[in-house]
Amino acid sequence: MRTRPLKVALLGCGVVGSEVARIMTTHADDLAARIGAPVELAGVAVRRPDRVRAGIPQELITTDATALVKRGDIDVVVEVIGGVEPARGLITAAFEHGASVVSANKALLAEDGAALHAAAEANGRDLYYEAAVAGAIPLIRPLRESLAGDKVNRVLGIVNGTTNFILDKMDGSGAGYSEALDEATALGYAEADPTADVEGFDAAAKAAILAGIAFHTRVRLDDVYREGMTEVTAADFASAKRMGCTIKLLAICERAADGESVTARVHPAMIPLSHPLASVRGAYNAVFVEADAAGQLMFYGPGAGGAPTASAVLGDLVAVCRNLVNGATGPGDSAYTRLPVSPMGEVVTRYHISLDVADKPGVLAQVATVFAEQGVSIDTVRQQGRDSGGGDGATAEGREGGEASLVVVTHRAPDAALAGTVEALRKLDTVRGVASIMRVEGE
Amino acid sequence: MRTRPLKVALLGCGVVGSEVARIMTTHADDLAARIGAPVELAGVAVRRPDRVRAGIPQELITTDATALVKRGDIDVVVEVIGGVEPARGLITAAFEHGASVVSANKALLAEDGAALHAAAEANGRDLYYEAAVAGAIPLIRPLRESLAGDKVNRVLGIVNGTTNFILDKMDGSGAGYSEALDEATALGYAEADPTADVEGFDAAAKAAILAGIAFHTRVRLDDVYREGMTEVTAADFASAKRMGCTIKLLAICERAADGESVTARVHPAMIPLSHPLASVRGAYNAVFVEADAAGQLMFYGPGAGGAPTASAVLGDLVAVCRNLVNGATGPGDSAYTRLPVSPMGEVVTRYHISLDVADKPGVLAQVATVFAEQGVSIDTVRQQGRDSGGGDGATAEGREGGEASLVVVTHRAPDAALAGTVEALRKLDTVRGVASIMRVEGE
Ligand SMILES: NC(=O)c1ccc[n+]([C@@H]2O[C@H](COP(=O)([O-])OP(=O)(O)OC[C@H]3O[C@@H](n4cnc5c(N)ncnc54)[C@H](OP(=O)(O)O)[C@@H]3O)[C@@H](O)[C@H]2O)c1
Ligand SMILES: NC(=O)c1ccc[n+]([C@@H]2O[C@H](COP(=O)([O-])OP(=O)(O)OC[C@H]3O[C@@H](n4cnc5c(N)ncnc54)[C@H](OP(=O)(O)O)[C@@H]3O)[C@@H](O)[C@H]2O)c1
Repeated sequence: MRTRPLKVALLGCGVVGSEVARIMTTHADDLAARIGAPVELAGVAVRRPDRVRAGIPQELITTDATALVKRGDIDVVVEVIGGVEPARGLITAAFEHGASVVSANKALLAEDGAALHAAAEANGRDLYYEAAVAGAIPLIRPLRESLAGDKVNRVLGIVNGTTNFILDKMDGSGAGYSEALDEATALGYAEADPTADVEGFDAAAKAAILAGIAFHTRVRLDDVYREGMTEVTAADFASAKRMGCTIKLLAICERAADGESVTARVHPAMIPLSHPLASVRGAYNAVFVEADAAGQLMFYGPGAGGAPTASAVLGDLVAVCRNLVNGATGPGDSAYTRLPVSPMGEVVTRYHISLDVADKPGVLAQVATVFAEQGVSIDTVRQQGRDSGGGDGATAEGREGGEASLVVVTHRAPDAALAGTVEALRKLDTVRGVASIMRVEGE
Repeated sequence: MRTRPLKVALLGCGVVGSEVARIMTTHADDLAARIGAPVELAGVAVRRPDRVRAGIPQELITTDATALVKRGDIDVVVEVIGGVEPARGLITAAFEHGASVVSANKALLAEDGAALHAAAEANGRDLYYEAAVAGAIPLIRPLRESLAGDKVNRVLGIVNGTTNFILDKMDGSGAGYSEALDEATALGYAEADPTADVEGFDAAAKAAILAGIAFHTRVRLDDVYREGMTEVTAADFASAKRMGCTIKLLAICERAADGESVTARVHPAMIPLSHPLASVRGAYNAVFVEADAAGQLMFYGPGAGGAPTASAVLGDLVAVCRNLVNGATGPGDSAYTRLPVSPMGEVVTRYHISLDVADKPGVLAQVATVFAEQGVSIDTVRQQGRDSGGGDGATAEGREGGEASLVVVTHRAPDAALAGTVEALRKLDTVRGVASIMRVEGE
């Protein structure tokens, strides 16, 4: 074992950083044995220097992250500040000063992964970020390394714990969105401003990272179609149940059937109760990966939280330290396929559409004609009188006056065709409103 | 990209080897891009040279595996022959001649992993074997690398597809063991001689490998307690159902509560239907990992089959080739903790015991006294008259003469105490027989 310790600068000491520091201290001997050299916490950058930070010597604390990164004796920078700046500048400076970097920063990686990888490579250093996607769950490494000899066709997962907690709550208790959100906030599963989670920004960043790695190409945050889950209603869950489904916020990355393009998207979707993702409870995450030779794999575990996320950070820290000891670098960026990212309109999937319609004869025929004209083939239709309280007895065709609802489930069709259909439906006099449109996945 | 190709010798071209060769050929460009150098199939060793092997040029085929390995120009040897010899000698020779090795050979790794790792290290080469445990499922790499900064406390998994298929069949259809085995054989899920699978030898080899990696210690095949699943009956499944459980053949590796020793075992066990492993169907595999910081992780996928296993082999091939291109080696053996492996008697778990008892008053008191004397605390007891057809109405205490059954579920107790209890129960006049003893896990 080499005796000169590897020096680690920790940028950020919040939920994740404090756990990283704790494990580095309590597991120091194990880490040294696994790396082949001791690791030493050489400095900790924070915003508020006077906060008490258990187990961290006060002399290590600094508010000058830039100076810490540029000190010259730092071997590895662990960035757990989050956000695009100053994290980006600090990471770039770290590479320029000869350090390798471990980060948990999905926002930054999704925004600017290519440039950061290039900076790492230019300086012969590593950039690892297992913790950026699905917390403790090993996902980046399996995709990047274990499946390096295979062809991944699809990644389908629950990658945001906050929204899964909320949807699971709605499913289990029949609660509405805001009630479930309140509970998530009270229990610490949702932040005071939940926008990044509930609007799907967090999941979209992860989808961009996963798609890039899975398909060996470049997918930016802007390339990811994104729909949040704030409009999912108790009525949607009731419809899902009637179909033997539940609703999850999914990140879906797919290679097109011809292999010549990819898509990445985040939106709520119905999935069959028999699908393994349907039984992912609470704030847990799970990701399905489909590859040519391997078949279907699933990875499941805690997608967030200080300790789980720190576990992933520490795994990366051991890997980059080993690489430094060996004078090598790990597998870096691999975007050689340069596959174009197709727009959402080209995604092919199934749809569940609820329409509020006039309760009079001929409505179904009109609606069916619109679907046919747009080339969207109907799988099933269910009609239901407004006042029948969800029973299947009363049908729109059978009564005059009032309102009724019509639920259409389609066969697979391009998203653009579905959008065209919905636009045309809205123009029908007999269609009072499109109550919900939900994609159906995982079949 | 370097242009001199890396030369790969393939030892064995059966179920797995033929798929390795196929993927190497069809995905040659992708592999080259991911490695940074082209890879070339330089020779294929088999037993029967005259068999037609689609896609493999005849001039690559040889029956002299030793000569192939010693050729001097081979960069990587892929060993997919199986069994201890000649695989062991060939792998050792490969290292001595400067090659790195990828193997799928659980039997050999469990038997002699330490010596093989030492040979790899002595020659500065890699030994990778992701495919040896749970086929396509990334498990060795996540344990060895992703969790390298964490402390793994438990690995609990279904690691044999054949037995899971049989047990799943028995559970679903009420079939007996031999009927379900026949179906597994007919469908190609069981080999003509199913001993290695049904007696738990295959799972025990995997448990030895997993325990060694998870706990950074040395666990040999002989250290693994092993019980097959040939004695599991339809009656056991009925009992399991009554408890809200199903039965799985589990490989369980645990760190003792004091952290100073480990255990590894393979046996059938009842697990609650709510446990994610309970819903692993057919020939699929799934492994639960519990770690201090990460919490509970699960890995799921196809545990065998030519293509899935080849996916894992190819992932390793890419990794060792990258290492060769970089002049580095990957994380090797890490057995620094040297934790002793405790015998089965020290394992602490719960038990479900079915006794055939005399149907007369006082039996329960006698039986309960034996448990108390052995220090095994009873959780629940269920008595049932022999002729009452499984109903819970008639009790042993209530009737004279005939036979009855008594089902005892215990609290957690050391296996040795349970064994002592069973021995003492057998000596009771009123106990006609011990119909089954099954451990209860995953609660
Ligand atoms: N929390 C999770 O469960 C989780 C899961 C996966 C990934 N992540 C990622 O991990 C990263 C960190 O998340 P977190 O939850 O630990 O955040 P956090 O609790 O808000 O902690 C952020 C830390 O960064 C420090 N900081 C902020 N601005 C700084 C600056 N300009 N210079 C130096 N230090 C600065 C803060 O200092 P003070 O302590 O003085 O405020 C704090 O210690 C983010 O990228 C996040 O996306 C988090
Ligand atoms: N099959 C699976 O699903 C699976 C899953 C995980 C791991 N594995 C492991 O993968 C390995 C291979 O399994 P497999 O199912 O592919 O076995 P297999 O179908 O029986 O193939 C064995 C191959 O080795 C060749 N061979 C046997 N003895 C040889 C010798 N002395 N010299 C040269 N070649 C020899 C055979 O030649 P011939 O073709 O001429 O007979 C055959 O090509 C085993 O370690 C197994 O445990 C298999």
